[in-house]
Amino acid sequence: MASSAVAFANENRQRFLEELKDLLRIPSISTLPEHKEDIHKAAKFVADDLKRIGFEHVEIIPTEGHPLVYADWLHAAGKPTALCYAHYDVQPAEPLDEWKTPPFEPTERDNNIYARGAVDDKGQLWMEVKAFESLFKAGNGKLPINVRVLFEGEEEVGGESIEKFIKEHPERLKSDFALVCDTELFAPDLPTLCVGLRGLVYTEIEAQGAMTDLHSGIYGGAAPNPLFALIEIISKLKDANGKILIPGFYDHVKEPTADELKAWKALPFNEEHYRKTEVGSTVLTGEPGFSVLYRTWARPTLEVHGMPGGFIGAGAKTVIPARASAKISMRLVPNQNADDIFKKYSDYVMSLAPKGIQLKIKIHSKGPASVVGTDSNWIHAATEALKEVFHKETVYIRSGGSIPIVTQFGDDLKIPTVMMGLGLPDDNLHAPNEKFHIPNFHRGVESIIRFFHILAK
Amino acid sequence: MASSAVAFANENRQRFLEELKDLLRIPSISTLPEHKEDIHKAAKFVADDLKRIGFEHVEIIPTEGHPLVYADWLHAAGKPTALCYAHYDVQPAEPLDEWKTPPFEPTERDNNIYARGAVDDKGQLWMEVKAFESLFKAGNGKLPINVRVLFEGEEEVGGESIEKFIKEHPERLKSDFALVCDTELFAPDLPTLCVGLRGLVYTEIEAQGAMTDLHSGIYGGAAPNPLFALIEIISKLKDANGKILIPGFYDHVKEPTADELKAWKALPFNEEHYRKTEVGSTVLTGEPGFSVLYRTWARPTLEVHGMPGGFIGAGAKTVIPARASAKISMRLVPNQNADDIFKKYSDYVMSLAPKGIQLKIKIHSKGPASVVGTDSNWIHAATEALKEVFHKETVYIRSGGSIPIVTQFGDDLKIPTVMMGLGLPDDNLHAPNEKFHIPNFHRGVESIIRFFHILAK
Repeated sequence: MASSAVAFANENRQRFLEELKDLLRIPSISTLPEHKEDIHKAAKFVADDLKRIGFEHVEIIPTEGHPLVYADWLHAAGKPTALCYAHYDVQPAEPLDEWKTPPFEPTERDNNIYARGAVDDKGQLWMEVKAFESLFKAGNGKLPINVRVLFEGEEEVGGESIEKFIKEHPERLKSDFALVCDTELFAPDLPTLCVGLRGLVYTEIEAQGAMTDLHSGIYGGAAPNPLFALIEIISKLKDANGKILIPGFYDHVKEPTADELKAWKALPFNEEHYRKTEVGSTVLTGEPGFSVLYRTWARPTLEVHGMPGGFIGAGAKTVIPARASAKISMRLVPNQNADDIFKKYSDYVMSLAPKGIQLKIKIHSKGPASVVGTDSNWIHAATEALKEVFHKETVYIRSGGSIPIVTQFGDDLKIPTVMMGLGLPDDNLHAPNEKFHIPNFHRGVESIIRFFHILAK
Repeated sequence: MASSAVAFANENRQRFLEELKDLLRIPSISTLPEHKEDIHKAAKFVADDLKRIGFEHVEIIPTEGHPLVYADWLHAAGKPTALCYAHYDVQPAEPLDEWKTPPFEPTERDNNIYARGAVDDKGQLWMEVKAFESLFKAGNGKLPINVRVLFEGEEEVGGESIEKFIKEHPERLKSDFALVCDTELFAPDLPTLCVGLRGLVYTEIEAQGAMTDLHSGIYGGAAPNPLFALIEIISKLKDANGKILIPGFYDHVKEPTADELKAWKALPFNEEHYRKTEVGSTVLTGEPGFSVLYRTWARPTLEVHGMPGGFIGAGAKTVIPARASAKISMRLVPNQNADDIFKKYSDYVMSLAPKGIQLKIKIHSKGPASVVGTDSNWIHAATEALKEVFHKETVYIRSGGSIPIVTQFGDDLKIPTVMMGLGLPDDNLHAPNEKFHIPNFHRGVESIIRFFHILAK
């Protein structure tokens, strides 16, 4: 039966891709209020297709934020139930002038599809939907296992609504495991399962000095400058070696096991190639004494993302701004508690407030790290499916990114997650010229088909 | 004759004000290319009126930047020649949402006129023009002294074109002294002449790390962050007490004389009132051991004005930006050389570049400080005129702001400048809700009329 679903998928490759392009044309940017309608349009696009291909109970569930899309098909008696997750929202596309083709006009180049959301995560969401369609078709309206679909539209802004929904309706989501397609292959053609993620605490420090913007000639030397105050504070959060200086920040950090570290060393990773082709900087930075994979997968970090305030147009304006703010996030590793870290961070930042400056600290999102074990039926089945598609052994990696939903599936639904992602390291997610490698889209569809058939055995 | 010009000015107060409003309605923002046409409109508005009231050789002089407006009337044989300067360009109006009434729709409230450029400098430019009109009218087409008018449209962006013009055509500007109306009274109703200004070096540091924006989850811990790099650098430019840490920065600083310091102490200055009503911060900042007036008039400072780059919209974006920049300026005091300071600053900044970061330093504008003596005919006459209008003794102050043109008048034309400004300390120049106190506009017109009549004696 796998082969007939796979055959259907192969015959419909071009249509699947054209449908994905239609989805990518919807600028469903979750952080920008002016795109609220696009978010709804994307949710409806996905829900309509889930209904068309054979799901039951298809529902666009309104929330206080952006809607969830739910669907299920639960008639495979005695077979396991999968909770299949992805997200249909995307990051902002700025800086727009760095895109070679418009971010919401999907364009094929060199066997890639370029668009905001191509790999993160609409392309991978559509991989799931098209695997389901192929399975329904080959099964004459039946799936080999039970499937619940839960897609969200807030992943890029913290995913509060899905978190609340899962907490309030665990019974509606009762499943045996979760499938999350939002990660990447370690290298092209190398089947990969992600078994660990860093957590995230994303904050904004708002600083106020004078009551109004002041002329820096007239008031320079007497008026507090909130932008300089933020600079003073942030310079004390992390040293030049990447060590975070917040008291107690590393207290609960859990190190990877010796086995993991050994396996990571065996991965096909060329630091110089990574520096040149992925990062494109003159050197790599970060804590000395840790490998690049260790630093990006299993060490906590702190970054500043932007500093709104003052004059940021072209040219010169001699202003001491009344207000400025800084967007700062921390990536967490296992055993660091997001609330504990936020408290330590806030206490430390407040203690650094220069005189004359009022600070407020907002939290945009938070979620702990999570690590899933490799010794489970689900990971075994996924590994087997990937071997059938790639004809290679799977590598188990972590990701430096955060998928708080994976942690929540473990905490609130008590189920493990299979993170089967088909992105590539150079897919430019969250950046200009985001892409998805088209062969990986099709491989993803086939891998999910085979994964579910193996689980139905 | 002064009295008939003054009488004419008094009879035409309302018309003068309505004309000023028309000038204020033109958004002649010199730093924004999209307002180029408005700059020309403002130049034409001014030139047309100069012609109408009786000037000769009225000319809009094109430059590589924004045009100059020149006019003269030179038939007062044996009388001195004044070179009358002001600027018709304005600062950007951002942040727009903090204006109570629109910046380019002049509005009267509480005897003030609110608009971008009201006091800096269109209101003061118009003061000059209306004084000239009154003098022409009372003199039946003649002025009591010779007058050259030279107005520029680039003051807020460094004034390069006027600098070049003066260097190339000193003979066209041959005068005995300059009148600059672009400063303020020390206190309401207190006649004030500004006899010293700080200089300015305005720079932008551009930092580049990776070749493209990167996801901070995936790359955090390995990729250089140019925004954090700028923070590290800027935090080392100035300490928490306001002391600038650039090596050699204070080498040539010339201190005010003991007499000046004594006179400043006698000024009606209430630090607590200044803090509350002008700055509006919880405390004042700056170098300990120097008074507020000393700090803002005669001590050099360093400020950061804005940091373009990364994500500055609402919400959260987990990006490590490829590029970021920082707008940083320094105010200079007498004997500091702008080129020398820029070199010391650049050398120091470059020496602080974190690994993996490429820096470029741009200069937006530069000009040294200048101090003019109080013991001259021009200052004596101006003092007498102000006494006739205000019935009080004039105080001699400095300003923390920069008017590079004053230095150039001294250096290239070898003439002293009378800085007769009628702004008030709370006029919000360069900030939202900029205003000009209407009685001061009229006093300014009258003061210039009387000043020129005294010089004609």
